[in-house]
Amino acid sequence: MKSHTLLMPLDMHLHLRDGVMLETVAPLTSYSFSGAVVMPNLVPPVTTKEDVIAYKKRINAALGRVEEADDVLMVDDFFEPYMTLFYQHYDREFLEDVVDDIAAVKLYPAGITTNSEGGVDSFDLETMRPTLEAMSDLNIPLCVHGESDGFVMDREAEFMSVYEMLASNFPKLKVIMEHITTKEAAAMLDRYPNLYATITVHHLLITLDDVAGGMLQPHLFCKPIAKRPKDRAALLDLALNAHPKVMFGSDSAPHPQHAKEACGCAAGVFTAPIALQLLCELFDANDKLDNLQNFVSDNAQSIYGICPEFKEVVLVESPFEVPEHYGSVVPMYAGETIAWSISNVE
Amino acid sequence: MKSHTLLMPLDMHLHLRDGVMLETVAPLTSYSFSGAVVMPNLVPPVTTKEDVIAYKKRINAALGRVEEADDVLMVDDFFEPYMTLFYQHYDREFLEDVVDDIAAVKLYPAGITTNSEGGVDSFDLETMRPTLEAMSDLNIPLCVHGESDGFVMDREAEFMSVYEMLASNFPKLKVIMEHITTKEAAAMLDRYPNLYATITVHHLLITLDDVAGGMLQPHLFCKPIAKRPKDRAALLDLALNAHPKVMFGSDSAPHPQHAKEACGCAAGVFTAPIALQLLCELFDANDKLDNLQNFVSDNAQSIYGICPEFKEVVLVESPFEVPEHYGSVVPMYAGETIAWSISNVE
Repeated sequence: MKSHTLLMPLDMHLHLRDGVMLETVAPLTSYSFSGAVVMPNLVPPVTTKEDVIAYKKRINAALGRVEEADDVLMVDDFFEPYMTLFYQHYDREFLEDVVDDIAAVKLYPAGITTNSEGGVDSFDLETMRPTLEAMSDLNIPLCVHGESDGFVMDREAEFMSVYEMLASNFPKLKVIMEHITTKEAAAMLDRYPNLYATITVHHLLITLDDVAGGMLQPHLFCKPIAKRPKDRAALLDLALNAHPKVMFGSDSAPHPQHAKEACGCAAGVFTAPIALQLLCELFDANDKLDNLQNFVSDNAQSIYGICPEFKEVVLVESPFEVPEHYGSVVPMYAGETIAWSISNVE
Repeated sequence: MKSHTLLMPLDMHLHLRDGVMLETVAPLTSYSFSGAVVMPNLVPPVTTKEDVIAYKKRINAALGRVEEADDVLMVDDFFEPYMTLFYQHYDREFLEDVVDDIAAVKLYPAGITTNSEGGVDSFDLETMRPTLEAMSDLNIPLCVHGESDGFVMDREAEFMSVYEMLASNFPKLKVIMEHITTKEAAAMLDRYPNLYATITVHHLLITLDDVAGGMLQPHLFCKPIAKRPKDRAALLDLALNAHPKVMFGSDSAPHPQHAKEACGCAAGVFTAPIALQLLCELFDANDKLDNLQNFVSDNAQSIYGICPEFKEVVLVESPFEVPEHYGSVVPMYAGETIAWSISNVE
């Protein structure tokens, strides 16, 4: 049986939510990943040092409780939640105080996606300068949800000018284009040395055709929305070749089933429990398995300067039937069979 | 109170389905329209003279029963279902026999939308020639669902070459581009004298942003999918100016709520009970109310050569709260208030 070993896989963009949902989804990531960059768009968002510490404590508690449950098998009980702050115009003193507790600051344009109402209204350079200069000096990466408020298929491409403004004005600030979906973003990556990107597994697999080309598929609806085949091809080129400025970030975003299969469906694809398996299948099918380690871990370690504790995850080419539900959440490919499984051997 | 009178409004593209659904939706169209071109994509499709006659009888029965109900007010109990056949490669003898029972033949590419599995696999001119020549000689219009099997946003534009093939090879055949959604189709209209089009009310009002730009809205998901703002602008230009080759066709397509708010949502927007009200609001807002009569009736009478019995429908600028449901069907704008109502005065 074909197998592939990954060391310290990292999910550089993850939604863990809070409360019961947190308890449901956190162990599904900690099972197979060494760590994850945890998004701060709770209600209310994570904006203080106390928020960061308290949320991290709740995440660890959620994992601690689950370790004792029989129905979740832990590959390794080590998992690091890399915490983030929801971008506001923070002052230097605050950032100096919180820098050791966070991995990044996440910037949302106001209202652009789930729980982003408190985001940035306008990208005014001078208003943002003190915060971004302090972040640059303190080596805090800026993670960005890069979408304009324009037509849904154009939002990411229209946002490129903001990335250029940020990257050129703060050349030592690491600017991470989160969950990129377009050839325009892919092309932007090499124009500025301080621009990086994360890519989800679902944007490597689907286009708008999968969301709305046949029946409408709410469980594949996310923001940014999946784009055209030529956009997906540009993302695949980056990921399969493990471009050194690109990291895996699942953007796995759980919603309860009733919020997805409804009149007014929330945005988000839940991939946490199957992300590594799907990536193995995809990289193997393209004869690029040797590049997967860089895409799912090494690039991120270099970019963020993080050193996760040793963890080995073995994947095997053996069918895995994706559950219909994890708690209240319907995963991508629910009820379907995927080609690779996680084998929790040592 | 502002009011506007329409004479013999016609819906030139309507799905009435069958059974209980037919009984639910038929009176919602007959209430305000003089007639409607009824689509033949039942399961199995309408492909014989007996099918046509039996389906028309079921439609009339559905209307007859409802006339006695207290809860549906009939403006006028006259309503003509203009029947259609599902396109197959019919021979001349069959078409000569059925011509008096149908208003048109509806062509679907195989598998392109709801219940279209028995449609045309390839648009081979010589295979289609005998049928289309007979239709041309018998003056039977060909209604076409014009989409390729390509990327969802490109399907209609990619189909333009088929329209050109049909229009140029059968110059006396009336070819009707159904429910057009793109600037490409709008531009095609004047290139061939025998090309016509229907436009829905929802494609005059929404773009893909309304379907998938905020929350995903299954009740606005249809085929062809709503396109870009510039496409909608091209449709509005045709409709508001009542281009003489353009007719109103609602493509009102009921599905039970459970088939819309689901993992795998069926395509179709249900507008029958509010279509005329929305059109009045739209044409009034654009100072084009004088053109509405041509768009919703006179153009269709000329193109199809039909003469509906006299019926007068008076609309008033008075708020109408759209019901949450009609039977099992959720209409467009369910629970919202629209600005115009039908006033069933004489």
